[in-house]
Amino acid sequence: MGSIEKQRIAELQKLLKEAEIDYYIVPTADYHNSEYVSDYFKMREFLSGFTGSAGTLVVSSREAGLWTDGRYFVQAESELEGSGIVLYRMQEENVPTIKEYLEKNVAEGQTIGFDGRVVDAFFGKELEEAFDGKNVTLAYDRDIAAQLWQDRPAMPVSRVWIVPEESCGMSASDKLAKVREKMAEEGAAHLLISRLDDIMWLYNIRANDVECNPVALSYTMISRENAVLFIQPKALTEEVKKYLEENHVICEDYDRIAAYLKGCDIEGKVWCSGADISYMLYKLVQNRAELIDRKNPTERMKAVKNPVEMEHIRECYLRDSVALTKFLFWMKENVGKVPMDELSVAAKLDGMRAEITGYLDLSFPTISAYKSNAAMAHYSATEEHFSRIEADGFYLVDSGGQYEGGTTDVTRTIALGDVTDEMKLHFTKVACAMLRLADAKFLHGCTGRNLDIIAREPLWECGLDYKHGTGHGIGYILNVHEGPHSLRWQYRPEIPETELEEGMIVSDEPGMYVQDSHGIRTENIVEVVKEEKNEYGQFMGFRHLTYVPIDLDAIDTQYMEPSDVRKLNAYHESVYAKLAPYFEGAELELLKKATRTL
Amino acid sequence: MGSIEKQRIAELQKLLKEAEIDYYIVPTADYHNSEYVSDYFKMREFLSGFTGSAGTLVVSSREAGLWTDGRYFVQAESELEGSGIVLYRMQEENVPTIKEYLEKNVAEGQTIGFDGRVVDAFFGKELEEAFDGKNVTLAYDRDIAAQLWQDRPAMPVSRVWIVPEESCGMSASDKLAKVREKMAEEGAAHLLISRLDDIMWLYNIRANDVECNPVALSYTMISRENAVLFIQPKALTEEVKKYLEENHVICEDYDRIAAYLKGCDIEGKVWCSGADISYMLYKLVQNRAELIDRKNPTERMKAVKNPVEMEHIRECYLRDSVALTKFLFWMKENVGKVPMDELSVAAKLDGMRAEITGYLDLSFPTISAYKSNAAMAHYSATEEHFSRIEADGFYLVDSGGQYEGGTTDVTRTIALGDVTDEMKLHFTKVACAMLRLADAKFLHGCTGRNLDIIAREPLWECGLDYKHGTGHGIGYILNVHEGPHSLRWQYRPEIPETELEEGMIVSDEPGMYVQDSHGIRTENIVEVVKEEKNEYGQFMGFRHLTYVPIDLDAIDTQYMEPSDVRKLNAYHESVYAKLAPYFEGAELELLKKATRTL
Repeated sequence: MGSIEKQRIAELQKLLKEAEIDYYIVPTADYHNSEYVSDYFKMREFLSGFTGSAGTLVVSSREAGLWTDGRYFVQAESELEGSGIVLYRMQEENVPTIKEYLEKNVAEGQTIGFDGRVVDAFFGKELEEAFDGKNVTLAYDRDIAAQLWQDRPAMPVSRVWIVPEESCGMSASDKLAKVREKMAEEGAAHLLISRLDDIMWLYNIRANDVECNPVALSYTMISRENAVLFIQPKALTEEVKKYLEENHVICEDYDRIAAYLKGCDIEGKVWCSGADISYMLYKLVQNRAELIDRKNPTERMKAVKNPVEMEHIRECYLRDSVALTKFLFWMKENVGKVPMDELSVAAKLDGMRAEITGYLDLSFPTISAYKSNAAMAHYSATEEHFSRIEADGFYLVDSGGQYEGGTTDVTRTIALGDVTDEMKLHFTKVACAMLRLADAKFLHGCTGRNLDIIAREPLWECGLDYKHGTGHGIGYILNVHEGPHSLRWQYRPEIPETELEEGMIVSDEPGMYVQDSHGIRTENIVEVVKEEKNEYGQFMGFRHLTYVPIDLDAIDTQYMEPSDVRKLNAYHESVYAKLAPYFEGAELELLKKATRTL
Repeated sequence: MGSIEKQRIAELQKLLKEAEIDYYIVPTADYHNSEYVSDYFKMREFLSGFTGSAGTLVVSSREAGLWTDGRYFVQAESELEGSGIVLYRMQEENVPTIKEYLEKNVAEGQTIGFDGRVVDAFFGKELEEAFDGKNVTLAYDRDIAAQLWQDRPAMPVSRVWIVPEESCGMSASDKLAKVREKMAEEGAAHLLISRLDDIMWLYNIRANDVECNPVALSYTMISRENAVLFIQPKALTEEVKKYLEENHVICEDYDRIAAYLKGCDIEGKVWCSGADISYMLYKLVQNRAELIDRKNPTERMKAVKNPVEMEHIRECYLRDSVALTKFLFWMKENVGKVPMDELSVAAKLDGMRAEITGYLDLSFPTISAYKSNAAMAHYSATEEHFSRIEADGFYLVDSGGQYEGGTTDVTRTIALGDVTDEMKLHFTKVACAMLRLADAKFLHGCTGRNLDIIAREPLWECGLDYKHGTGHGIGYILNVHEGPHSLRWQYRPEIPETELEEGMIVSDEPGMYVQDSHGIRTENIVEVVKEEKNEYGQFMGFRHLTYVPIDLDAIDTQYMEPSDVRKLNAYHESVYAKLAPYFEGAELELLKKATRTL
């Protein structure tokens, strides 16, 4: 084991020597910093043998090191065995970051290499600063390791499809006009976008090039006159070509982006987001024009859903809620009677979703976690490691789908049998946290940093907490995680905050995790709505999009304020009203019971 | 009326013509941006006749304009009558800001003048930017109008006194050492401080040069080797001189600061806070050295009270609470029986405070406001305008003292007779707001922006709000308003936030104001304390410093959660326990009743 990788590293070291590169960095990313990486981009896995979703390999003549985080220490240790690769356990004491490692080891006159297309501009600039004035070269223009990978999978390419205007509510031309307004405000003559979901949103197209993200590998460059879309020719049907032409979008080959940026006319400033673009493209632009390094204007536009999108989203969440509720009822009724394990029940849920009208894909791989497995933040059951499910303790399922009418995300935790008083306390506090935040009323101008504490306070007052954000934005038939808004409390002056606006949708997902025991998360998606406007200002609030019962078997009202009980009863009343038309017979009885007034 | 001012403006216009200054700005400030301005600095009042605490005069050959805010529109209109000065009502529609006014009117080649000592660097730099490249000169080196003011009051000068170490807990030498550590961290060779409270804190001295602020007019310049204090020689007794010498602090004449900055040796960077220093000093430094424009390191150090200070503060707040409670009992018992008005009762309260051991001064002029007067944010009764107080409605009193053991601030609103249901709703919600915030438990790392909503939510959920911050820091025998921490919710990316730390003290003062009807504010001061530390992090909380009953006559429990009632009862139980030793006879009975369990 590990001998193939040992050989690959040795061959890479030889290539590096020839290329006069002293340290070579292989991260885990595609050219667009996507959340998921398709097989073509799994160079780090090919070289190291480590299959985890996050990790960076650094190879020098002296050693090869792999950096990964706590989720993967055990897996990496086993997968790296025999490869000679040193495991660097990120965030453990005395373990340097990659930057610190390089700062310590790279000598004057040496060269650091990486494929500048898979490293974002932010990290590239960090390296520039770290080695400023130290006579160290950054060689970022070649994918040196590519020649070692003989049977490399093909670059993903799927057929692009058009989101009809009755679904997305606004034509690509109108979106382009709005983008150009923003460009004029910022004094930008050009806008270069590398974020795939922003590009899909802008042109009202979708595809399937990234797992669970309905996007096509692409770039776009927009000026006052032109909009150029760089995309793989194979991805375009005649219909799509015609559609783009009608919207005055010029298509160029995806591979030509670098050549285009080197050769095109650039007058005036170029807006491109350093946090989203690859270091290579950033440098290409920087060499030719003055840069405006700000978040893409499309990010906020896409976050504020228009009324047409919202109507589809509400309907889509309702159907998704019906499927999940039926699944949870099935589990509670059948656990201990029919064999269940984390993988089999996830497959059942995925199958139920697939039958919903307009289903396209999952929005992320279903997290199906029983008992203590749910206490691990990024748990994912595999064919090698999964748990059987018995009529005891908590089961957590975090899942969602891509539909023609939207992208869903929802988490429920259910009691499959006995749960302790402590587990009930945790479950009840998490339910109160979710409901209090969803019922919050606030003045326009609030950001997620103002609101986060409403969800956290029921736990904080017990000396408890969950070590993740309370909420994230969600795409429309797009990525399940999107910005720019979020619900979190930590102060990070370098991250601009975004005010919550009518039409934004956001997850509300407090949780509680006890190592080796249990994990609880209750996640609804809510839309931001306007409440009354008066002399004090414009009040805002949330409305639920998710209508799935909260398991009353794990609720203990002694841990609730009367207002919390009222909120829970009101939520369940609305769940019943929304779901009942989709239920009948015994299932309807279960729904009645599950949404009963406390 | 106004004819003297008319003449003064004409004389000023003549002087401006001679000096070749086209627009001359006269703000309301001393050389240190103090909250209160002593008579010597009231040049704007001398020239315009307008006596309000805020306003800026701009004089050109064409016109004289006075800018002030909504608090003073009526007063300014009346006081400016006959002077020929145009009133610019700030923040009203179509009224330009001073900057906008200048941008519109000042022509190429013209000169804008002001006394660079009374304009802060922030505003000066704004003007620089606004007129960058437009061939407009800023003449900031002369107090042109000074020669018109024949009988100008003397510059204030009071005797400096030393805060003994048993009161302030840390010697000036130790503080200087800590400041120098910070300077080394920031790479600053020098630190120039202009904030009077920072200087007082640093050297453990106090004086009486600014109303209600126990400070001496001064500057200080600190390097690795030297600490130079610029102060009026008359302010120093032999004892203070000796004390400063012992702490290796060199004294220079206050008036010599500019000459010193022009002539002294400056090697390395100079740290000075552009938000706190005058434009003139800022320019002097900028001409000679590289600047580090950051908040003074003393600001945060002074905000975190040490255990010795905290012990004095707790005792001081208790004695202050006793006096206020007795005053409020007296009002409630005697209203309608003995004549009362806003001024007479304020005088009575001020007198009761003056009898407390260690009393030095008020910490701000007492706000004594009856009925609808309390709805005005900055109401202050005057000999000309004040209300009689009857046995009806609400009375609000916001007051505090300077003592040898600390600086207090407290607001209570009491029902003097009948109050409507709406008034009870507002009063009850404000009480809940104050108590919920005071009882909040939160993880270390939270800033005031995370916490503010805990106080606001009870009002926001009713569609109500108060248009001021929830809390501010408070000095130790120093200014009643100090930073850097605060409790507010609005997002202002340009203002860095400060995490709440053990030993900080902060006001917790929600309110509710209904124009022409009533104003309510309930303000306790709380200290930040550490709660348990566990796997989730270091939890923090607050402890009350203020122990004054909340008027139960205006509380209606139907507007409270059971937990709110518990919080109120627990607070009143602690009020009784703390205050009872200072009460006897009929007053003790009143205390029992005022703190009874609901």
